[in-house]
Amino acid sequence: MSPAPVARSGSTEQAVLAVNQSFYAAFESLDIAAMEKIWLQEEWVQCVHPGWNLLMGWDEVRESWVRIFASTQRLKLALSSLWVHVQGEVAWVACTEHVTSLFEGDFDESLVQATNMFILHEGAWMLVAHHASPLPAAPEPSLQ
Amino acid sequence: MSPAPVARSGSTEQAVLAVNQSFYAAFESLDIAAMEKIWLQEEWVQCVHPGWNLLMGWDEVRESWVRIFASTQRLKLALSSLWVHVQGEVAWVACTEHVTSLFEGDFDESLVQATNMFILHEGAWMLVAHHASPLPAAPEPSLQ
Repeated sequence: MSPAPVARSGSTEQAVLAVNQSFYAAFESLDIAAMEKIWLQEEWVQCVHPGWNLLMGWDEVRESWVRIFASTQRLKLALSSLWVHVQGEVAWVACTEHVTSLFEGDFDESLVQATNMFILHEGAWMLVAHHASPLPAAPEPSLQ
Repeated sequence: MSPAPVARSGSTEQAVLAVNQSFYAAFESLDIAAMEKIWLQEEWVQCVHPGWNLLMGWDEVRESWVRIFASTQRLKLALSSLWVHVQGEVAWVACTEHVTSLFEGDFDESLVQATNMFILHEGAWMLVAHHASPLPAAPEPSLQ
């Protein structure tokens, strides 16, 4: 994973970014049990993987991660250009994902722009929406 | 534009969907003045057009619409698969955009998945984030 991002200010932003990091740690380690702890398990949570149609509700979202994890042997993730905004008990993070995946001997590198939304639920920030979309190739070789 | 969507319940969802429709009406009519009334004009608003990098802040977001409108002669937009969720004074809409654009005699048709976020600001729902990403070609010829 990339170095921990610097929050713009205050501990609320840091708490949101910490959950965002935990989401990508679960993604990188292909760990569905960890992923289950990040998402709010409601019928209205949403997920758009790059090039996929919208998935609606925890059952569809969970199934998509199971499928992605099953078709990936190893994954390496780095993040850049992190932005966080908190609006009351809702927060969202924008970030660029630098994804390297391995499956059946083939490496795939991709650059993805993500918007991740969280709500404060029983004192914890929980992921409720993930929208990830393909970007053109990286304009610069080194990460920020 | 597509027919008015049906809100899941209540007038708050309907109010959010009405602003979402106004956003696409401004988009379709290539009207920057109308677009200015939809967006909250803050430095933290965000926009991802299909395949573009993240734009941050009203100045960058406004400039992108000016560029898109300048490079489009006519635009036709229809929406399908609308979902709305309200969480206190934050709301978001997921929808599929069916976009037909014309520039210098060339038609372009595209299918786009969008997440639009709004906050309640001085009594009005204002757009604060638009994330739009390309989808594969439509699976069915007729819109819902």
